[in-house]
Formats: sequence, C-alpha cells, structure tokens
Amino acid sequence: MIERLLLGPGPSNAYPEVLEALSQPVLGHLDPVFLSLLDETSERLRSVFKTSNALTLPISGTGSAGMEACFVNLLEPGDTGIIGVNGVFGERMCEVARRCGAEVLRVEAPWGDPIDPQRLLDTQSANPRARVVAVVHAETSTGVESEIAPLSILQETDTLLIVDTVTGLGGVPVNVDAWGVDACYSGTQKCLGVPPGLSPITLSPRAVERIKNRSIPAQSWYLDLGLIGDYVGAARKYHHTAPTSMIAALHAGLGVLLDEGLEASWARHRSVGSQLQSSLVERGFKLIAQDGYRLPQLTAAWLPEGSDEATLRRALLDGWSIEVGGGLGAFAGKAWRVGLMGHSARPESVERLINAVDALGLNGSLN
Amino acid sequence: MIERLLLGPGPSNAYPEVLEALSQPVLGHLDPVFLSLLDETSERLRSVFKTSNALTLPISGTGSAGMEACFVNLLEPGDTGIIGVNGVFGERMCEVARRCGAEVLRVEAPWGDPIDPQRLLDTQSANPRARVVAVVHAETSTGVESEIAPLSILQETDTLLIVDTVTGLGGVPVNVDAWGVDACYSGTQKCLGVPPGLSPITLSPRAVERIKNRSIPAQSWYLDLGLIGDYVGAARKYHHTAPTSMIAALHAGLGVLLDEGLEASWARHRSVGSQLQSSLVERGFKLIAQDGYRLPQLTAAWLPEGSDEATLRRALLDGWSIEVGGGLGAFAGKAWRVGLMGHSARPESVERLINAVDALGLNGSLN
Repeated sequence: MIERLLLGPGPSNAYPEVLEALSQPVLGHLDPVFLSLLDETSERLRSVFKTSNALTLPISGTGSAGMEACFVNLLEPGDTGIIGVNGVFGERMCEVARRCGAEVLRVEAPWGDPIDPQRLLDTQSANPRARVVAVVHAETSTGVESEIAPLSILQETDTLLIVDTVTGLGGVPVNVDAWGVDACYSGTQKCLGVPPGLSPITLSPRAVERIKNRSIPAQSWYLDLGLIGDYVGAARKYHHTAPTSMIAALHAGLGVLLDEGLEASWARHRSVGSQLQSSLVERGFKLIAQDGYRLPQLTAAWLPEGSDEATLRRALLDGWSIEVGGGLGAFAGKAWRVGLMGHSARPESVERLINAVDALGLNGSLN
Repeated sequence: MIERLLLGPGPSNAYPEVLEALSQPVLGHLDPVFLSLLDETSERLRSVFKTSNALTLPISGTGSAGMEACFVNLLEPGDTGIIGVNGVFGERMCEVARRCGAEVLRVEAPWGDPIDPQRLLDTQSANPRARVVAVVHAETSTGVESEIAPLSILQETDTLLIVDTVTGLGGVPVNVDAWGVDACYSGTQKCLGVPPGLSPITLSPRAVERIKNRSIPAQSWYLDLGLIGDYVGAARKYHHTAPTSMIAALHAGLGVLLDEGLEASWARHRSVGSQLQSSLVERGFKLIAQDGYRLPQLTAAWLPEGSDEATLRRALLDGWSIEVGGGLGAFAGKAWRVGLMGHSARPESVERLINAVDALGLNGSLN
C-alpha cells in the first residue's frame, strides 16, 4: 500500500469517511436505501452549490463528462457559444462546443489573468442570439479565479450561463442561484475530498426548459439530462446503472464538508493557500496568477530559475511521497501546480511540502 | 450499514478484495505507481477479453458509456449500421447510433430469442458498405446469449463488428480475437464483481485505423478514443482525470478472476445458473430465454400465474435482504431477472433465494 500526500491539481486525498463509505457492501441502483442516499446526495449538492435547482445530481463520469453534459444538452448544431478562454479548461470548452456543431466566439485573456466579465457581456450584447456564455470559475491550469457574479445580468437575456467550477466548489464561494448560473459542473476529486469519477452538476429551471424544447435529441445518449432526470427524479426510470459506491462516497464527502460548514471550509482553504503562497515566494518561486485573482486551493508557480522541475517533482514523489503537478502549456517544464484541496488542505500539508522543498535545496532566494 | 445479497441484473456483490482496494488511499492519475497499475489492468483485461489488442482499457463511465464510446468513434454521420435487436440493449444501440447521425438497419428477433448471425451476415452482404454490424452477446433484459463466432467472417469485409458483452464477460466464454470482434465493451458490475462505474473496452487494430481515418472528430470529446489512447498508451498525455480508485478496484477484481481462472469462473457460473433455473422451473416459473441460448448468469423468468411480482420482490428485499430485478418492456410486472454474477455466483446464493421464494409461498406447482 502506497500512501501519498496529494498536493497536485487533483485528485486530493480523500476524507477518511469517504474511504470508509467506499469499503461498504455494494447497493443496487434501484434499492430504496440507495435511492434515498441519492436523493440526500442531491440535496447536499444543492446546499454546496447554493441553489434550489431541482435538476442537481452527480453525472456518472469525471469533471470533463460534466462539462460535456452541459454543452451537449444546451447546444444544438448552428448555435453560437461565447466562451472565455484563459487556460486549458476554457480551451476544452471550445473544443467540446465545436463538436456539438456550435459556432464558438472566444473571449481570451492571457494565461494567469482572469476573464473580464464585462468583455463576456459586451460580446453577448453584440450577439444577443448566442445560446450560451461559458466561463471557467477556477482555472486549474493557472490557479486563477474569474468573477462570475457580474454575469448574473445574463438572466435578463435569452443567453444561458455555463460555469465550470471543478476546482472551485467547496474551496471558495460558489453561489449558483445568486450568480444566475444556468448550468454548473464540478468534480469530486478536488475540494470535495472524494476520489475522481463523478461530476456534480446543477441546471436552472430555464436550462431544463431549454433542454425540453430542443429540436433534436442531445447527441449523447449517456449524458442526456432529460433521460437522466427521469431516473434521479420522481419517475425513477432506469437509464444507466448508477455508480452506487462512488455516489455513496460523494454522499459521505459532502457530509464531511457540510458538517464543517461551507464558510469554515472556505476559510481553511484560504488560510493554507496564503501560507503556501507566501512560503513559496520567500523561496524564489513566482506566482503565475494575477494578484487579487489567486485561488487559495490551487497555486501555479514558476520554479526558481535554473530548477529542473521534472526531476525535482519526481524526487518529491519518490523521497517524500508528496505529489505536486507540473505546468501545462507554456508553463510545462518550468512551473508547478500545487493543490491544497479538501482533506489535503491542512497546515501540515504545507509544512511537509515546504520542508521537502527546502531539503531539495529548492530555494531561489539563496541561489 | 446494509448488506444485500445482490441477485438482480447488476450490480452484483463485489469481491472482498475489491472493497479492500477501494478503501486504500487515493493515487494520482499520473503517479508512476498508478500508471503501472493501469497498465496491469489493461493487461488483465486483454487476458479476460482473450485479445492482443493494444487499445484495451477501462472507459471512465458505466457500460452504456462503453457502448457510446464504440459507436461515436466508429460511426460518422451518414454511415450505415446494422444492429441486432432482441431486447433493451439492442434498442439502446440503435438509439445511440441514430444520435451519431447513422442510418440504422435493424435485424430483429423476438425478446427471448437469440439473433441469428446468418441474418446479420445476409444484411451485411446486401449492404456491403455498412460501417458496422453490432450485436449484444448477452442480453441483460432477457437472459439470452447470441452466437458471435460465426460473425468472424466480417473480418473479410470492410464492415466492423461491435459486440456488447456487458453481462457476458467473466461469466461465459468471450473470445474477442477468435470471434473477430473489432470493438467490444463490458461493465464492471456484472460477472467481474466490481461496483458499477467503469466500462472495459477493447478495439482491434483495424478499428483503431478506422478512428485515425475519420473525416471529422468523434462527436464526444470525453469518449474520444484517439485522445484517451494517448493517455493509456506510451504518450501518457493528460486527457481527463482517470477514476483511479475505481480502476484500482477493477484491477483487484480482475486479479481475483484470473487467480480463479476463466474456465473455472465460467464453470462456476454455469453450475449455479443451471441449479437456479431448474429450481425455478420446479416451482412453476417459466424461463423466458429460448432453450439452448440461456445465460447461466442472468435468468429472466415469468412468475407463477397470479403472482404479484412487485410486492413479492419488495418482500424479498425487506424480509431477506435479497435483491432481484423486475422484468423490462413486455415482461414488466410479470417476470423477474435473477443474476448470479461474479462474487454473487455461489450455490449459497441460490439456496438463500430459493428458501425465500418458498417461504413467500411463491410455488406455482402447488397453486
């Protein structure tokens, strides 16, 4: 058995209660005991997303499946989608939308900067028939948080708002209803402290209406939210076999989070994130995300100059059993991504990592 | 904690080694320890599928995601697909193919009968440009096994063979290479004794070639086997975060199966299936699947006349903690589907069920 301290961009370490839930006997997907656990999971997700949306559930796939579920259900061929792009996951949204046959209007910002919500709104004003505006709340490739609240004004238009908060949910405030988000998806393996494999999503009543009024069925049967809604809703109609053990794990993880309290969890992430970021800066790392828009739970940082990041990262894993992530895109080979998410977001995690960094001689200020 | 004896159409009970694996600390999807576990999982899947296909892996979704992965990667809009339909899962294939923009030619058989392979071959001869022939090996809605081996002759044509063996794999012989199957998918929660959530699939070299030569990308980004192949293959390129804990569970379940031996597992399923089927017939149940084509691991049976199936099924769950499945389609309200799969395929399971059936007074021969 190998035990890692998981400080990469996800997965994070699972809460003990989650591993305990995973070790329990399997339940059937139509067992009344499981169905009430599923209902309770949806209810807990509503609390965590801060929404009263009826259609709130875990998609049977990872965060990218949640992304795809939102796009394939809300877009039809020929629709226009306005998409903010400031990292890998904005790019991914464009690719998924394109595969739905949509025309994509990109609103770009340099990697490391947030998306200016006003630019999304201006693009929507110039293209009022756009079906969706989509933006990543917490960019896992750069550690940047983009502001979502100003986009709530889209509720006054016919354009739906899709938000990716895979890395945000549980770690920083997410306010689906107050922000006017029509479709929001997350992942279990970040700030929820559950292994990867499910994608919590929630859709507003007007998004559900949109799905009902589609002219052709969603191109994905597996991710068809109309059909899935008939299973998680009152009809209990079999669609596919729900991943019951992983849903029990999510149920347990959400229980831990809500017992701690959302505000307390956000404060914990904020505290350890700022501890980490100042420790790294002291050691000659340079933070990639723009000041004022830094996620506490995911820090992307340039290593001190001359550092061999891949070798050092491997040494960290082999010598200290600590996993951090490498940079993506232009940051590959030169940056790390350090996650402090869910159960991993502890002061001890920062201490263990910084001790190892120091032991590795990774201290740019002394170079 | 509720412990069920899972004798429905899936999930089955998980092997103890599988629950043990699920309770282990989470690993990252790029951790070398996890990657070697993933490689070993693919190698074990090759043994179980009886194939040397390089592209053999667990899809990050349930069996239906595996089905969709095969169709969206192999079909393009305007292609023709010939599909055998003798139950729910053949119908589902048609729906998935249709959503890919394909024209579907149905080769039907009554529910409870197998698909005659010659009729599939004749339809292919009349439509030699058909892109795929697709058929369900083990129909979970009826308990029927259809013969796949005669379809190996499709290897001499330009038509690819897709086979659904969600309920077959591990319980009855599956011979991907000898049968000339180009794309084969299964599920973890049936005869593999692993919770639901992953879909093992394997693609032949000519299927991979077909994917490379597509004129447009697959409509699903999440299920794009070209991109996923770059992660499970030597490139190790990040696509989506692999569900590491569930893959560790599958790894463990395949280990149990291969330690027992495929032939021994098939024999065990055959033995308990025939024990169950004769016990049910003695009690006035009528088997739905045609004689000679009955799956041992999944038995669909009409209840003795006048039985209130839903009430009895609920009594079985509440009083004996035994889950069996209800009938689908025309069998709803009148039939049960009883699974003896993976870890659930034990003589004790049959005894517990039959004792309960007798206690419920469910004995048509006495009526």
